[in-house]
Amino acid sequence: METKIILKDSDIPKTWYNIISDIPNPPQPVLHPGTGKPITPADLLPLFPMPIIEQEVATQRFIPIPEEVRKIYALWRPTPMFRAERLEAAIGTRSRIYYKYEGTSPAGSHKPNTSIPQAYYNKMSGRKRIATETGAGQWGSALALAASFFGLEAKVYMVNISYQQKPYRRMLMESYGATVVASPSKDTNSGRQILAGDPDSPGSLGIAISEAVEDAATREDTSYALGSVLNHVLLHQTVIGLESQEQMRIANDYPDVVIACCGGGSNLAGLGFPFLRDKIAGSRDPRIIAVEPSSCPTLTKGVYAYDFGDTAKLTPLVKMYTLGHDFVPAGIHAGGLRYHGDSPLVSQLYHEGLIEAQAYPQTVVFKSALTFARSEGLLPAPESAHAIHSAIVEAKKADEEGKEKTILFNLSGHGFFDLAAYDDYLAGRLVDHEHPESRIREALGRLPKTGG
Amino acid sequence: METKIILKDSDIPKTWYNIISDIPNPPQPVLHPGTGKPITPADLLPLFPMPIIEQEVATQRFIPIPEEVRKIYALWRPTPMFRAERLEAAIGTRSRIYYKYEGTSPAGSHKPNTSIPQAYYNKMSGRKRIATETGAGQWGSALALAASFFGLEAKVYMVNISYQQKPYRRMLMESYGATVVASPSKDTNSGRQILAGDPDSPGSLGIAISEAVEDAATREDTSYALGSVLNHVLLHQTVIGLESQEQMRIANDYPDVVIACCGGGSNLAGLGFPFLRDKIAGSRDPRIIAVEPSSCPTLTKGVYAYDFGDTAKLTPLVKMYTLGHDFVPAGIHAGGLRYHGDSPLVSQLYHEGLIEAQAYPQTVVFKSALTFARSEGLLPAPESAHAIHSAIVEAKKADEEGKEKTILFNLSGHGFFDLAAYDDYLAGRLVDHEHPESRIREALGRLPKTGG
Repeated sequence: METKIILKDSDIPKTWYNIISDIPNPPQPVLHPGTGKPITPADLLPLFPMPIIEQEVATQRFIPIPEEVRKIYALWRPTPMFRAERLEAAIGTRSRIYYKYEGTSPAGSHKPNTSIPQAYYNKMSGRKRIATETGAGQWGSALALAASFFGLEAKVYMVNISYQQKPYRRMLMESYGATVVASPSKDTNSGRQILAGDPDSPGSLGIAISEAVEDAATREDTSYALGSVLNHVLLHQTVIGLESQEQMRIANDYPDVVIACCGGGSNLAGLGFPFLRDKIAGSRDPRIIAVEPSSCPTLTKGVYAYDFGDTAKLTPLVKMYTLGHDFVPAGIHAGGLRYHGDSPLVSQLYHEGLIEAQAYPQTVVFKSALTFARSEGLLPAPESAHAIHSAIVEAKKADEEGKEKTILFNLSGHGFFDLAAYDDYLAGRLVDHEHPESRIREALGRLPKTGG
Repeated sequence: METKIILKDSDIPKTWYNIISDIPNPPQPVLHPGTGKPITPADLLPLFPMPIIEQEVATQRFIPIPEEVRKIYALWRPTPMFRAERLEAAIGTRSRIYYKYEGTSPAGSHKPNTSIPQAYYNKMSGRKRIATETGAGQWGSALALAASFFGLEAKVYMVNISYQQKPYRRMLMESYGATVVASPSKDTNSGRQILAGDPDSPGSLGIAISEAVEDAATREDTSYALGSVLNHVLLHQTVIGLESQEQMRIANDYPDVVIACCGGGSNLAGLGFPFLRDKIAGSRDPRIIAVEPSSCPTLTKGVYAYDFGDTAKLTPLVKMYTLGHDFVPAGIHAGGLRYHGDSPLVSQLYHEGLIEAQAYPQTVVFKSALTFARSEGLLPAPESAHAIHSAIVEAKKADEEGKEKTILFNLSGHGFFDLAAYDDYLAGRLVDHEHPESRIREALGRLPKTGG
């Protein structure tokens, strides 16, 4: 048994996997925020180039990956899969734990899997500039990288609290040539409105999305790019799971449990959807687990309803698990998981019982992160550490039940930009934020009345 | 042609390559700082466990890598080699540029190649604790990682200016469980003496070495560990070059020029020595280039003489290129290259004309680093960026001469901990520090009078 299961450049998938072709029920329509009617491709054209819109609504099972994208993927893909023997020994489990490591990408996370094709399609469609938001900065770095590869300008609205906590992420984006501002910013109407009410707003992904959408909608040369949630983003991330299936075949194993952290849902979908295909087909029966922070418990405590993707109600309405579009989660260190909603596809599959969800507070997550770092070596991103924690919990549960399971999780990124969080944890400064149910109920009371 | 040339876990070298078996002249003896006589293994026993001392003086060509070390190497080795096609296009060269990427290690640089076996041999020899110094923090992180793997305590004396500039490196070491202090510190006599004279001393590797050596020499359970300079360290790093030779064979190519940055010399030796073996044997004629910063021009402006490895004159005397043991280089961002001396083996081979040396100021180095980041994606460590700059210079020179060369350089680590430096560069705050010849002459005037 080798420690790593590696693949060659030529093993990079030639197609993305589109789960829409296999899900039991069709996706719920996306609604226009003004009319409440299903939106048309033309409605989206101010925001996205046509090839992206086509992928958003595509129904075929496999969608070809352009050769130029595969060539850039080869800068870090296929990513390695590890058998975590040292972690297994450290926690004394009889289960087999594997992890797919996406932190080898230049931006340090799985996000370039979609930023590269998004920049590619924008370039092909003649757009010159991309506006986007970023939470922890992983997506912003990935988009900045992709823009630099294709000679596009990038403007990144970075959630204020992350902008303050993670200056290195801002500097990385700037090193790739992007322009970065703290959100809410003075550069947009929606930003200025929020600043007027709360000059010290910590910001949120919802607010930053409003700003980036407004920027793109008001400039003809500019597209909007999203790092999670939307169908085409999840589609691009399936390279993770497709490679993992091949790696599992090489290891002559198959996961009983597939685990990923879940903010907007892209890394969960990326790893999980190809395995979910097996589950839907009935050929295998893996459990797929989405892990979220207790302080932003979208799947575990939200409702399945139509809501806006952003705070300023600029985006279309999507049917998803949500805590309410103006829910502002506490400033936890897993900034990438601080989103009020969830991908419509992940939400639907969770609603239909095909995906499970778990929520954990950050202190136990950091404890597991250090157990991992001190056994496997890699320092995980706080987001990814949620998946590690769940994998450890599942392994211990299997031990208690006298079972031996195969557990696969996605180590979606490294934590080199998150060391202030580890410093806080080691110094005992990290606290858990559970949201009182009343605050969640309050935010849910402000859901739009539209649609299903 | 694939973008990456990758190897399997089973391709991790089974032996290290010891260049002492092949160099034209025997190494110069190491002298006792008190008596001026050659030191014996017994003299070194307070600092190092016996297996390390044996490797320091070994003469056989290949030394077996313990299975337990190879197993841990497999957490990141073999490391990938890339054909830098996007960089070649960006600078418009006709030459072929390859780079070996060591930043995939958990600590982010090539340093764990030696910290792992050092911790292993200390553990096997019953030592409980390791003291060491670190400049930029790359070595300290690597040692902290290795100590955590083998259940050893680690105490790291971190050069003060890096401690201030790179808090994330300190936090990474602490995340692995190490104790880190800024050097000069109040924990040792040598530290206290320097603080008495200069309470705001920026520190230097020479000072930090004094502290770590004193710590180890005065505690029986404690060894000293060095991240560069010594023969056994260079030996461990040869896995880089041995893998690279195999990867070059796969690419059906061979480097005309082999380039690495050079502080103490370990990453240069690691990549270069296996290729130097071909050169000494006469079967090939690669140029091996050591690249150093203009502000610490050890090979290019120092002298080849016996000198102390540290500022407080606690270490044995070694024959090496040196700027004088009390030379304190400017606080440049490539902290890992701020050493007054150089590995005795690298020094001897440079003295004998088998290695070349180049020195560059930091602003042009950062310019090349960004050219690389924006084409190949990876953000390089400032140290490694010296090698990138030299590779670009060599490629352009070949173009001017109408030649097409094969250039291989070592990307020894990533720059995720060095973003403040990139921020300074982008904001125009980075300046070049050339040392006036008079200051170098002055420091050289204080060389010890001992020996050859």
